[in-house]
Amino acid sequence: MSVHSSYSGHSHHHHHRHHTPSVSYREAPLAATPSYGSGYSGGYVDRAISPVAPPPGADPQLWQWFSAVNATHSGGITVHELQNALVNGDWSKFDLDTVKMLMNMFDVDRSGTIGFNEFCGLWRYIQEWQGVFRHFDKDRSGSIEGYELAEALRSFGYNLSPSLLTLIEQKYASAPMSGYGPPPGITFDRFVRACVVVKSLTESFQRVDTDRDGWVQLSYDEFMKIVLSMP
Amino acid sequence: MSVHSSYSGHSHHHHHRHHTPSVSYREAPLAATPSYGSGYSGGYVDRAISPVAPPPGADPQLWQWFSAVNATHSGGITVHELQNALVNGDWSKFDLDTVKMLMNMFDVDRSGTIGFNEFCGLWRYIQEWQGVFRHFDKDRSGSIEGYELAEALRSFGYNLSPSLLTLIEQKYASAPMSGYGPPPGITFDRFVRACVVVKSLTESFQRVDTDRDGWVQLSYDEFMKIVLSMP
Repeated sequence: MSVHSSYSGHSHHHHHRHHTPSVSYREAPLAATPSYGSGYSGGYVDRAISPVAPPPGADPQLWQWFSAVNATHSGGITVHELQNALVNGDWSKFDLDTVKMLMNMFDVDRSGTIGFNEFCGLWRYIQEWQGVFRHFDKDRSGSIEGYELAEALRSFGYNLSPSLLTLIEQKYASAPMSGYGPPPGITFDRFVRACVVVKSLTESFQRVDTDRDGWVQLSYDEFMKIVLSMP
Repeated sequence: MSVHSSYSGHSHHHHHRHHTPSVSYREAPLAATPSYGSGYSGGYVDRAISPVAPPPGADPQLWQWFSAVNATHSGGITVHELQNALVNGDWSKFDLDTVKMLMNMFDVDRSGTIGFNEFCGLWRYIQEWQGVFRHFDKDRSGSIEGYELAEALRSFGYNLSPSLLTLIEQKYASAPMSGYGPPPGITFDRFVRACVVVKSLTESFQRVDTDRDGWVQLSYDEFMKIVLSMP
């Protein structure tokens, strides 16, 4: 799997062509699911239609999983149903912030819940990230350590300083660093969020840095909006 | 309780004197606990000393709570012990990010755990915030709604635009907004985090905005560091 999205603060090259769907925020639902909207003619997640019957042509296994996650059989998965369904390798639940990020990415019709078509996109996205996670979890510890995170972000094309990499490691680790024992690792959910946050912030910076000199000028309101829009 | 820390993007006044301990990040542990370090002569959280005996002069109730939270009786509360102990009004657990923020604020000796003296400061801090939360939860719903959050931040002295307030409400609400039903509220843990984040980001902005004109110039690395340092 190749995931590239380069940004160097002092580069004048344009890197948009390197962006691929798997770490793309907002654009991902469509890009990561090339058949989205083509297999089904729509309407299957309408709450008026019985949620028990799968839509024609639906992947039976995916429909089974969707029905299991949608415990209330309302036809749409809520953020709390999704949080109850998603677990890391160590059986810890996904963070609410990661679950909300995934909802925001895949709730294409902005209904506040994830319908079956939206669930198919979400499912593929998580599977792709699981592949990325396994690839960078070189020591097979089940979590991403600092040097593994650095390697992942470097391979995605981000040119981050060592102190910034340490900051990201501390922010997304599952416990604060202490003087005792090995530093805590990053679970799957927080690894995905860390990568999406770096991508999202870098793209926000690039949008303001129109002359590509690696510097931006921001008002207080613009600064706060960019920061508080990150997943 | 008065909590003030003003910032207007176009103000040239200096507001440092308005900062009070209760929403202060990093400085809070000492400021919020005026007796910190004076009541006890230190050493009580040393792992070599039996964790069962309370330090002389310790508040018996606080010691009881500390011992209950410190399930392993190691003498120091870990991030996971703290997360298991802290619940919102609706019995949901605190977010890992909020728990890590509290650990970072109150783990004064950077041991990676919270000793008894540190726990006393943390306890008072949470109690103060509970008072703030109850004060702004005007409708007694047990969660902070958008207009209650706007009122809280305004009373703390933050002059935020309506679109920024909406962004903060969406980011810290416990579920994404949807077209159906009332917008979800903000639980206690996420309310505290939202307020500390606004304060921390505003202070970071002010540190760069040395001429106080409401504008900053940032390199990519500086921008990323400020953003990823927020709780």
